[in-house]
Amino acid sequence: MKQSLLFSKTRKDAPKDEISKNAQLLIRAGFIHKEMAGVYSYLPLGLRVLNKIINIIREEMNAIDGQEITLTALQDKNNWEKTNRWDDSILDVWFKTQLKNGTELGLGSTHEEQISPLMKDYIASYRDLPRYVYQFQTKFRNEIRAKSGIMRCREFIMKDMYSFSLDQSSHDEFYKKSQKAYTNIFQRIGLGDKTYMTFSSGGTFSKFSHEFQTITDAGEDIIFIDEEKKIAVNKEVMQDDILNELGLSKDKLIEKKAVEVGNIFNLGTKYSDPFELTYIDKEGNKKPVIMGCYGIGPGRVMGTVAEILSDENGLVWPKSIAPFDIHLILLGNAEEKANEIYKDLIKNGLEVLFDDRDARAGEKFADSDLIGIPMRVIISEKTLQNNSVELKDRATGKVEMIEIPKLYERIKRENL
Amino acid sequence: MKQSLLFSKTRKDAPKDEISKNAQLLIRAGFIHKEMAGVYSYLPLGLRVLNKIINIIREEMNAIDGQEITLTALQDKNNWEKTNRWDDSILDVWFKTQLKNGTELGLGSTHEEQISPLMKDYIASYRDLPRYVYQFQTKFRNEIRAKSGIMRCREFIMKDMYSFSLDQSSHDEFYKKSQKAYTNIFQRIGLGDKTYMTFSSGGTFSKFSHEFQTITDAGEDIIFIDEEKKIAVNKEVMQDDILNELGLSKDKLIEKKAVEVGNIFNLGTKYSDPFELTYIDKEGNKKPVIMGCYGIGPGRVMGTVAEILSDENGLVWPKSIAPFDIHLILLGNAEEKANEIYKDLIKNGLEVLFDDRDARAGEKFADSDLIGIPMRVIISEKTLQNNSVELKDRATGKVEMIEIPKLYERIKRENL
Repeated sequence: MKQSLLFSKTRKDAPKDEISKNAQLLIRAGFIHKEMAGVYSYLPLGLRVLNKIINIIREEMNAIDGQEITLTALQDKNNWEKTNRWDDSILDVWFKTQLKNGTELGLGSTHEEQISPLMKDYIASYRDLPRYVYQFQTKFRNEIRAKSGIMRCREFIMKDMYSFSLDQSSHDEFYKKSQKAYTNIFQRIGLGDKTYMTFSSGGTFSKFSHEFQTITDAGEDIIFIDEEKKIAVNKEVMQDDILNELGLSKDKLIEKKAVEVGNIFNLGTKYSDPFELTYIDKEGNKKPVIMGCYGIGPGRVMGTVAEILSDENGLVWPKSIAPFDIHLILLGNAEEKANEIYKDLIKNGLEVLFDDRDARAGEKFADSDLIGIPMRVIISEKTLQNNSVELKDRATGKVEMIEIPKLYERIKRENL
Repeated sequence: MKQSLLFSKTRKDAPKDEISKNAQLLIRAGFIHKEMAGVYSYLPLGLRVLNKIINIIREEMNAIDGQEITLTALQDKNNWEKTNRWDDSILDVWFKTQLKNGTELGLGSTHEEQISPLMKDYIASYRDLPRYVYQFQTKFRNEIRAKSGIMRCREFIMKDMYSFSLDQSSHDEFYKKSQKAYTNIFQRIGLGDKTYMTFSSGGTFSKFSHEFQTITDAGEDIIFIDEEKKIAVNKEVMQDDILNELGLSKDKLIEKKAVEVGNIFNLGTKYSDPFELTYIDKEGNKKPVIMGCYGIGPGRVMGTVAEILSDENGLVWPKSIAPFDIHLILLGNAEEKANEIYKDLIKNGLEVLFDDRDARAGEKFADSDLIGIPMRVIISEKTLQNNSVELKDRATGKVEMIEIPKLYERIKRENL
C-alpha cells in the first residue's frame, strides 16, 4: 500500500489521558484510535496486525478440531438466571440494556450461558461427542478502571473455545492438546520466550486451571516462575503441598509481574448441570456432558507485544504478525525505480508499505521506526549509483547494501 | 470436513415462533441458531457463507481504494448530541447502557457520529483527501418488530463505508464508482438479476440517494421497476417530474415487493459541519469535507439468497457463496474409495463436506438437498462397479455418471 494514501498518520503525542505504553505507541503510530477509556478503534495498520493474530489462533484451533461459529453479544436474561450470574453483585462487569418492551438484555462478557443451551439442541447421544466449538466475538466488560490500553478493555475481541466431552478422561486428553495449541500460538506470535503456563486454582471441578502469563511490568498479575522448567504458579497455588506436587521448590521460584494472555479452564458439569446438557451413552444411560473453556484475547496479545517488543524509537513487530513484511522507503529522485521495486516485491508475494510521501528523510525514518515493520528497504539516488538498495532490520538495526537483482532472493529467504 | 464431526444437524422443524422462510430454512439446515427474535448465532455452515459474502464485499471495497478499519459498538453520547441524534424520539432504534459511574453509552446502529470526529484527527489538508474508509461492524438496532429472520435483526453485521472528498464533483465521481462496485457485489453473490438500483429521496444535500433493492415477496419495501432499463424508483420519488428527469414513464413501471440489500447516500456536510471536519485547500482556505456513506448487510444478503434461491427441498447456494463446493456422499460399503476421493478433491483445491455418517440414503439425500451445496458427488458400491461416481447439480437437478479418473478435470471446470 502506498503510504501517501494511508489515512492514518503518525503523531508526536498520544492523548493526555492515555497512560499505558502500549496504547501510547499504537496511537502515535496510527494503529488504533481511542474512543474513550478502554474502548479503541482499530485503524488499517492495527487491523492488519489483529487479523494476523486472529488467523494464527484460528489455525491452531482448527488443528485441534475446533469448529468456528459466531454467537451474539445480546444475551437472554433467562439463561443467566439459571446459573445465578445475572445479578450485578455476582457478575460485576455487566453492561445491560433493554428492548422497547422493557425486556432486560445483557451484553456478553463470556458465553458459557449461551453456548450450553445452544449445544443442547445438537447433542443427544454419545455419537455427538466430543465437540469443540469456538468463536472470535466482541465481549463487553464494564470495568471500573481501564488504564492498560488495549490490554484491558471495556469492549474487545476474544477467542473463546468451549469443549464438550463424554467423560473426564477424554476431556483431560483434549485439555492437554489445548495446552500445546496455546503454547504454539504464543510461540508463533513472538511471545514464546516470555510466556509461562501458570498453574492457578481450578474451582469446584478440578484442582488446577491454567493461565498463560507473559512477563511484563505492564501486567496486573504476580506469578512465580521456574525458569528451567518453564512453568509458573500464581499466588492462589503458592502452597508447599501444591509446589511439591508440581515438582517445584519455593527457593527456585522468581516473582514476576505478568499479564494473562490466555486461560484454559476445566468446567466439569458447572454449566451442563443447570442447562441439562446430557447425552445417552452406549448402555442407554443419561450422562452429563463434561465441559472446558479456552480463552485468548487477540487485542490483549497485540498490546502485550507492543509493550514487550518495542524500543525507545517505537514498535518492533515479529514477522508473523507485522502489518507489512517490508517498509519500502523512497528518498529523493528515484521514483521510477522505487515504483518498479514496489511492484516486483508485491509480485514476489510480499506485503509492502511504500513510503512514497514527499517528506524529509529524517521524518520518514522516524515514522518507519515508530511503525516497526520488520524489514526496511531504502532506495535513493545514492543507493542507485551502485544499482543497490539499503536493507535495515528493525529489530537488530543491522544495515546492509544489496544489489537490486539480488534483493528478491534475499528477502524471500528472510521473510517466507 | 467430515459431516460425522460437524456439530450442527438438520432438523425437521424450525422453532414455532419463527415465521420467516429464510430463518426457517437456515435453522432447519443448521446454518444459524435463534437466540431471541431478531438475534441469531451463525453455526459453522452459516459462518462459511457469511464470510464468503463478506470477502466478496471486501474485495470490491478494496478495488475502489477502501481502507478497512474496525470502529466500536460502544458510542460516546457527546458525539450524538452534536448531531441531535441521541434522543430516542429522534433515533428510535437505540439500545443504551451505562458505565459503572452512570455515564450513558449507546450501542451503534450506524457510525457517522464516530467516524467523523475520528477522521478529524487525520484530515487537515487537501493532500489528505480523498479517503474511503470501511468496516464490517456489529450493529445494534432496537427494532419493535423483528419477524423477517436474518433480513431484519436487532444485532447484525454491516459493512459501512464512509467517503471523504474535496468537493462535490470528486464526491460524485466516487459515488458513481461505488454504484458499480455494488452492482458487481450483487452480481457475484447471485442476486444480480433480481437486484435494482432504486432512486430514493436524497435528503438535504442531494436530490437522490440510491437503494439496491432485490425483488422478493419477503421484502418489506415497495418499488417500481423498469425491467428494460434495469432501474427502479421507490414511492418517495414516484412523481411525474422526477420520472421525466430519469427518463422513466409511469405506465412502464411495475410495482414489486423488495428488500433493501444495500444503500448509498450523499451526506454533503451533514456530519462534517457539526464535527468541524474541514481541510485547508491549495489556496489556504478552510473548506468542509464532503461525505458519503455506503451500506450493505451481509447477513441480510444471505437471508435474501435463502428466500430467493431455494426450492421445496431446501437451500440452493450459488457457487460463489456456498459453504462448500462439493457435497460428497458415501452410500453403503465404499468407505475406502470415498476417503480417497475426499482427499483427492481437497488436494485439488476444493472445499468438501463429506457425508461419512452411518445413515440411510434417503436421509442423506434429504439433508443434502436442505443444505444446498451446489454439486453432489455420490459414491456407492453400485457406482464403483463402473469405477464411477454420480454427479448431481443441486440447482438444475441434472444427474450424470462420471468415471473417477475424469472427475477432477470435470469438477475443476465446473467450480474454479
